[in-house]
Amino acid sequence: VLAGDLAFVWADELLDSTALPAAALDRARRVFTELRTEVMAGQYLDLVLAAAREADEAAARKVALLKSARYTVTRPLELGAALAPAADPATLAALRAYGDAVGLAFQLRDDVLGLFGDPTCTGKGTLDDLREGKRTMLALRALRLADPAQRVVLGAALGDPTLDEERAEEVRAIVRRTGALASIELLVRQQADAAMVAVEHLREPARSALVELATTATDRLR
Amino acid sequence: VLAGDLAFVWADELLDSTALPAAALDRARRVFTELRTEVMAGQYLDLVLAAAREADEAAARKVALLKSARYTVTRPLELGAALAPAADPATLAALRAYGDAVGLAFQLRDDVLGLFGDPTCTGKGTLDDLREGKRTMLALRALRLADPAQRVVLGAALGDPTLDEERAEEVRAIVRRTGALASIELLVRQQADAAMVAVEHLREPARSALVELATTATDRLR
Repeated sequence: VLAGDLAFVWADELLDSTALPAAALDRARRVFTELRTEVMAGQYLDLVLAAAREADEAAARKVALLKSARYTVTRPLELGAALAPAADPATLAALRAYGDAVGLAFQLRDDVLGLFGDPTCTGKGTLDDLREGKRTMLALRALRLADPAQRVVLGAALGDPTLDEERAEEVRAIVRRTGALASIELLVRQQADAAMVAVEHLREPARSALVELATTATDRLR
Repeated sequence: VLAGDLAFVWADELLDSTALPAAALDRARRVFTELRTEVMAGQYLDLVLAAAREADEAAARKVALLKSARYTVTRPLELGAALAPAADPATLAALRAYGDAVGLAFQLRDDVLGLFGDPTCTGKGTLDDLREGKRTMLALRALRLADPAQRVVLGAALGDPTLDEERAEEVRAIVRRTGALASIELLVRQQADAAMVAVEHLREPARSALVELATTATDRLR
């Protein structure tokens, strides 16, 4: 806790010790405060949902937005824009739309890789999310689309720390057969497309860099 | 942890949302960062000493300086000065000397009251510090001044969660008889005097307010 608090202060100190104009720093601090507040709200919501064991997709999406999208993509882009001399409202709106879409797609892709990925590529096992009982949007959609028999299998697997590869394969088969995997993959592509559209009027080289980032973040295999 | 982190951010936000001049805010932020870094260093040192069970008076004094004096008196005074149009170096130095002295005296008085105080006045029991085995400067000085037999009694009492009032009375008698109580009381008065001297050239009404605060903080019975 103390080390975390100290890192918190160092982040402030780093911002304070830049030689940037006061107006730019002032804008950046507001974004940074927003970022920090959101990630804590997301973490809190995540804990509440995990404890209550009654997450729905809308709640899981909100967690993904606050903890992944805003923290990892949207607010960092806004931080950069805040430090620039004068970002116009249209550019800021484009960055926000792009960040939320890419960030959500990235998290959904991460959820898919957590179940179907190649651990030698992702560096992350494909049993961990299941054993932890993580209420990802993929898992929640599969639960919603499952028939009663499938739902029993999914429900028993989620959060079982002794789950083995054989039962994980059953889960994967259900996630495919219900159409949950295909519909989440579709959502990833829709979000990635929305991100590309959001930035198509931005100037180069920003536009190309953002398009490349969106591709890397959502097509990634690891 | 999350609630604490959120309060951390709110403190920043509060500072950011004041209508103070940028230069004043900049000075205040530097003091605030110093304050936060120090209190964490003090808390860390306190934990290390408690775990190692081998505090000496110099280490205990450092904890009192960082956790009590700087956090409660010195840095808050500097924060006020930083927000004023232009505090001269002599005034700042006076406030620092005053704050460190009053803050240390306040902590020493608190340690004395934790053993000899009247719980109906202080709202704090006189067994708690002993049962916790708190290595206060008072306790450490008594240990240092004690003869071997007294040291055995003190050592057995410190950190014994079952300690009763009768054994606490034995401890109090040793703390008096060794001269530890008198020498800590002397140190409190010396620090209070040093604080008064430090601010005697300050303008009114600041000087009188600070003298009154020093008296309240060090003569207090609760």
